[in-house]
Amino acid sequence: MFYLLMDLLGTAAFAISGVMVAMDKRLDLFGVFIVAFVTAVGGGTLRDLLIGNTPVVWMREYIYIVTIISTVVLSILFREKLRFLRKSLFLFDTLGIGLYTMVGIEQGLQADLLPIMCIALGTMTASFGGVIRDILCNEIPVVFHKEIYATACVVGGISYFVLRNLPIQDQYVYIMAISIVVGIRLMAVKYKIALPSIYKTD
Amino acid sequence: MFYLLMDLLGTAAFAISGVMVAMDKRLDLFGVFIVAFVTAVGGGTLRDLLIGNTPVVWMREYIYIVTIISTVVLSILFREKLRFLRKSLFLFDTLGIGLYTMVGIEQGLQADLLPIMCIALGTMTASFGGVIRDILCNEIPVVFHKEIYATACVVGGISYFVLRNLPIQDQYVYIMAISIVVGIRLMAVKYKIALPSIYKTD
Amino acid sequence: MFYLLMDLLGTAAFAISGVMVAMDKRLDLFGVFIVAFVTAVGGGTLRDLLIGNTPVVWMREYIYIVTIISTVVLSILFREKLRFLRKSLFLFDTLGIGLYTMVGIEQGLQADLLPIMCIALGTMTASFGGVIRDILCNEIPVVFHKEIYATACVVGGISYFVLRNLPIQDQYVYIMAISIVVGIRLMAVKYKIALPSIYKTD
Repeated sequence: MFYLLMDLLGTAAFAISGVMVAMDKRLDLFGVFIVAFVTAVGGGTLRDLLIGNTPVVWMREYIYIVTIISTVVLSILFREKLRFLRKSLFLFDTLGIGLYTMVGIEQGLQADLLPIMCIALGTMTASFGGVIRDILCNEIPVVFHKEIYATACVVGGISYFVLRNLPIQDQYVYIMAISIVVGIRLMAVKYKIALPSIYKTD
Repeated sequence: MFYLLMDLLGTAAFAISGVMVAMDKRLDLFGVFIVAFVTAVGGGTLRDLLIGNTPVVWMREYIYIVTIISTVVLSILFREKLRFLRKSLFLFDTLGIGLYTMVGIEQGLQADLLPIMCIALGTMTASFGGVIRDILCNEIPVVFHKEIYATACVVGGISYFVLRNLPIQDQYVYIMAISIVVGIRLMAVKYKIALPSIYKTD
Repeated sequence: MFYLLMDLLGTAAFAISGVMVAMDKRLDLFGVFIVAFVTAVGGGTLRDLLIGNTPVVWMREYIYIVTIISTVVLSILFREKLRFLRKSLFLFDTLGIGLYTMVGIEQGLQADLLPIMCIALGTMTASFGGVIRDILCNEIPVVFHKEIYATACVVGGISYFVLRNLPIQDQYVYIMAISIVVGIRLMAVKYKIALPSIYKTD
C-alpha cells in the first residue's frame, strides 16, 4: 500500500517534470500530455521491452494512465502555481528515482539476470523517461551532461546487492538502498557536486 | 480486400510524407528511404512491441516493405511533381490515420486490453510514425504543436467504443469511427481549428 | 573463437565512436558511457526487439557490457591519443559493420523471416547503433546523409543470399559476404564515392 502510494507519487512527479519541459517548448495540449506520459512511463516501458515483459506495465495496470491524466490536467489548470512547488516536486521526483531504481532491479532479478544487468535495468527505469522526454523536445538529455542522477541510481543499486548479502531483512535492504539513491542526489544538488570533468577547459 | 487496399494506400501516403520531410532535410537516398519506412511502419511497430506482438507486423507480411519501396522509388522519380499531389496525399494520409487508429484498437482488443489502452494504442499506431520521422530529422514532432491529428484519433476511438454498444453491425461501426477521425481532421484543417491554447501570448 | 573476437572488436570500435561523438558534445562521464553503450548495442537491441528475442542479447551475455565498460574507461583515460588511432578505429568499425550485418541476417533466418527482412535486420543491426547515438546527441543521423555505409550492408546482404545458393561452403559464404561489406565501405571512403544525389544543387 505504502509502496503503491510512493510509486504513484513518483509517477506523478515524473509526469509533472514532463509537463514543465513540454510547456517550455510551447507544445499544444496533446504534446504536453504525451511528453508527460513518456516521462512517467518511458523508463519502465524500455525495461519491460528489453526483458520481454509484455504487454508493458502501464498497459496492464490502468492506475498509471489514470494517475498521469489527472496529474496533467491538474498541472495545466494550476500551471501558474507550479514553480512554487518546485521544492516538493524535486523531492517527489527524487523519491521516484530511488523507487524506480529498485523496481527495475526487482524485475531484473525476476528475469534471472546478473546483478550488473539488474543495476543497468534499475538505472534505466529511473532515468530513461527523462531521456525520451528530452529527445521528444529536441534537446540533448539533461541527465547526460548536468546532474548526478544516474550515478545515484548506480551507487544505490550496487549498495542493494552488497546489503542483501548481509543478515538484514529484505524490506530494510530496500529502504536503505532507496535512501542511498535519494541521499546522494539530494547532497549532489545541495552542494552542487558534479561528476569529475573529462574536459580541459570546463 | 477493400480493407487491404486502404491499408496500403495509407502506408503509401505515410511513406510519401516521410520522403517529403527527408528531402527537405536533404538526406541521401538511404536516409530518404529509412525515414519513409519508419514513418509508414513506426506507429504499428511501436504498438506491436508494446503488446508483445513479435515479429512485428511488417516483418511477417512482405506486402508492406514492397509497397514502401515502390512508393519511395516513384516519389523520388517524380519528386518535382509531388507538390501538385499535396491535396490527394493529404486525403490518403487522413484516411490512413483513420484506418490505423482502428487497426490499433483492434489489436488492443485482441490482446484483452481495456478500452482506454486500446484507444492509446490506436492513437499511437496512427501518429507515432510521424513522431519518429520528426525525431530522426531532428525536429520537435509536428503532431505535438501544430495539428488536430491525435485528437481526431482519440475522439474516433471513443466513438468506436460508444457505437459498438449500440445495435449496429460491426462493419458499420468501423466505418463510422473511421469517418469521425477523417471528418474531424478535414474540418480542423479546413477551418484552421487548433487545440485551445494553454499559453498566454499565443 | 575468431568469430567472438571479431564481434568484441566490432563492439569496442562502435563504443569508441560513441565516446568520440559524446565528447564532441561535452557530455559528462555518465553521458559518454551511455552514448558509447547504445552505439555498441543499439542496433542489436532493436533487432532483438523487432523479432521478439528477449531478454535482448547484451542482457544475456555479460561479455558485451564488460567489453564496453573497459573500452569506455580506456578511451577516456587515453582520450588525447584517440585521434592518432582514427585509422585503426575506422578499420575495426568497418569490420564490425560487416560482422553485425551477418549476425542480423543469421538471426532473421533463425526467426524464419524472408531474405528481404533478413537483409533489413542485418542493415539495422549494423547501422542503428549509430542512428541512436546521433539522436541522443541531437544530430541528424550521419548515416542518413553522409556515408555509403548502410548501402554496403544491403549489397553484402544480397550477396550472401546469392552466394549461399551456389555450391560454396557456409563459412566461406560468410567470409565473402563480410568482405563485400568491408570492401565497399573502404572503397567508398577512399574514393569519396557517395550515393547519387537526388537534389539539383548538390
